[in-house]
Amino acid sequence: MKLSRLGEFGTIARIAARSRGPGEEVTVGIGDDAAAYMPGPGMSSLVAADMMVEGVHFDLGWTGYRELGRKALAVNLSDIAAMGGRPLYYLVSLGLPADMDSAGLDELYRGMEESAAPHGVRLIGGDTCSSAILVISVTIIGEAVPGKMITRTGACPGDDIYVTGTLGDSAGGLEILKAGARGEGLGASELPGVNVGAGLRARPSENIGAGMAYLINRHIDPSPRVEAGMLLARSGLVTAMIDVSDGLSSDLGHILGIGKMERASGGKLGAVIYDKVIPLSGELVGVYGRGKAVRLALHGGEDYELLFTARPGGGDALAGLQDMAGIAINKIGSVADGGGLLLETAGGKRRALRPRGYEHFAR
Amino acid sequence: MKLSRLGEFGTIARIAARSRGPGEEVTVGIGDDAAAYMPGPGMSSLVAADMMVEGVHFDLGWTGYRELGRKALAVNLSDIAAMGGRPLYYLVSLGLPADMDSAGLDELYRGMEESAAPHGVRLIGGDTCSSAILVISVTIIGEAVPGKMITRTGACPGDDIYVTGTLGDSAGGLEILKAGARGEGLGASELPGVNVGAGLRARPSENIGAGMAYLINRHIDPSPRVEAGMLLARSGLVTAMIDVSDGLSSDLGHILGIGKMERASGGKLGAVIYDKVIPLSGELVGVYGRGKAVRLALHGGEDYELLFTARPGGGDALAGLQDMAGIAINKIGSVADGGGLLLETAGGKRRALRPRGYEHFAR
Repeated sequence: MKLSRLGEFGTIARIAARSRGPGEEVTVGIGDDAAAYMPGPGMSSLVAADMMVEGVHFDLGWTGYRELGRKALAVNLSDIAAMGGRPLYYLVSLGLPADMDSAGLDELYRGMEESAAPHGVRLIGGDTCSSAILVISVTIIGEAVPGKMITRTGACPGDDIYVTGTLGDSAGGLEILKAGARGEGLGASELPGVNVGAGLRARPSENIGAGMAYLINRHIDPSPRVEAGMLLARSGLVTAMIDVSDGLSSDLGHILGIGKMERASGGKLGAVIYDKVIPLSGELVGVYGRGKAVRLALHGGEDYELLFTARPGGGDALAGLQDMAGIAINKIGSVADGGGLLLETAGGKRRALRPRGYEHFAR
Repeated sequence: MKLSRLGEFGTIARIAARSRGPGEEVTVGIGDDAAAYMPGPGMSSLVAADMMVEGVHFDLGWTGYRELGRKALAVNLSDIAAMGGRPLYYLVSLGLPADMDSAGLDELYRGMEESAAPHGVRLIGGDTCSSAILVISVTIIGEAVPGKMITRTGACPGDDIYVTGTLGDSAGGLEILKAGARGEGLGASELPGVNVGAGLRARPSENIGAGMAYLINRHIDPSPRVEAGMLLARSGLVTAMIDVSDGLSSDLGHILGIGKMERASGGKLGAVIYDKVIPLSGELVGVYGRGKAVRLALHGGEDYELLFTARPGGGDALAGLQDMAGIAINKIGSVADGGGLLLETAGGKRRALRPRGYEHFAR
């Protein structure tokens, strides 16, 4: 049924039916002017918002509504993870084309719930309106012990730099999707041009190599490192943390205070990162070769891994966290006392690494 | 300067410069992965979100960026007001066309600040991205004493029905703007077709009657009843409350549990409202005549006045609140034990009043 037939209030009723309604902490849920909940006593509240716009963040030819919902929530969960906080509630404001099918809307919410449920995160409100293009605006609310949350600032010269998981996979997957849309083969036989996302998890096409499928999936369905973020915050070892959304070169710049956004204030920190220890998936290296894989890892973005700094000597303790966090943690470099951001390549040569991640409004 | 020249990080830096940065309660402000603040001890948190989409909620030919910013925040403040809560913080996610001028962005934020400042409400976060059309998604966070907030449910048969201010002005203003855009005169000599909003407050054109200017202004720059909402919640007299956004007939339906959204659950309450006591501005009656003014008041929407029910006999106490609240409070009817929503006209006749406010996705 088209949303134009279901109507606004039918749409809201459909959404409200998905929420669990008021409970112990949530005293007013969906369907009132505002939601109400009791914050944890003595806890600091965390709040972040991320918007995804059709034609900018996603292409409905590449992703299904369910994956879109999963990702819309995942990128918000990742923001709370990057503070070392516990996510609790979310609100979703949707701008929906009137010719969208209500089944698509159900899939969108199903995807968000799939991302939210493993972390016990609940939908408590939002807004629904018509729009020429699909717009998904999520606000996430979480909590942290005051003084235990990890901000972007706090790194010191001598700190080690770590990252969870592998980098570059998402950007590698996006390149495959773009090549598929252009009808290029990228060395493989065929790439489906539409709805790769929707069908991929259920039945990977024979025409896509398993490695490509893995990379595409990392792009359309990233995993926020919520557990790892909380464990890292609790460890007391971490001095600064951010999630890799713009790209390693950009996001490390934010931590060092020498990113594009902070340039005006004149950062005093620098860093050296080591080409050979940047964690890369076998799939990324297999599809692109090592040289391009490293470039994708440095500048690609949308990895939603955690990038953090820690006082030197914390390596063993951090290695011990990997099992609990369920994700690898690798040291990739060290914070320096100025000197900008440097990349040391295999031969021992160092070169300046400029932030080159995705930028909105760029021409 | 176009946003495409300023770039994403330049845009974010421009926005961050407007926020006051961390303070006593806000420990992490704009520029990190999430904002952090300490909730008031023992207080319940309130949160609401509203999205405004170009071509659906506003027409940039009718309104300036500053008024748009004022309204985007006002409609969110109104949601907290309707719970009887105190608004505290807001987040703004913006989808911005790359060819938008940075001066327009400044005006948008200036407008939001103008709405926020009188209530001590602070910008603490959000997101900025490019978009084919302008999208403004605001999340507002507030607080209330647990057990003292007013929800939409709670009205009982015999309760009186009240409304703040006057109704129908916003819909009246919108009709003038639409007539102006069609080049029609609506009885007046001339209506400017573009940027009525931007210039109107500073220098009302001679070509627009003062009454029309008032109505247009009520549409593009509504006043959220924040103080009134808090006073009403504190009074202990109010049983249910909502802000008039869809229209009196629709919003009263929500309180009675017989609105379009609630129809499935089968509401048990009804109401009678009295045609002759619906508060109308002199400007609305002057421009449209009494008959049409009443219809606009019943079904128009976007008034952002507070509609509430109170135990019988509270009239004197509520009248006493008017001065403190800075807004008139008028009784317009009574809650009944079923029988639907009825309108009693001057001659004493009663007829069923169907919800007829604006509905998204409607064809």
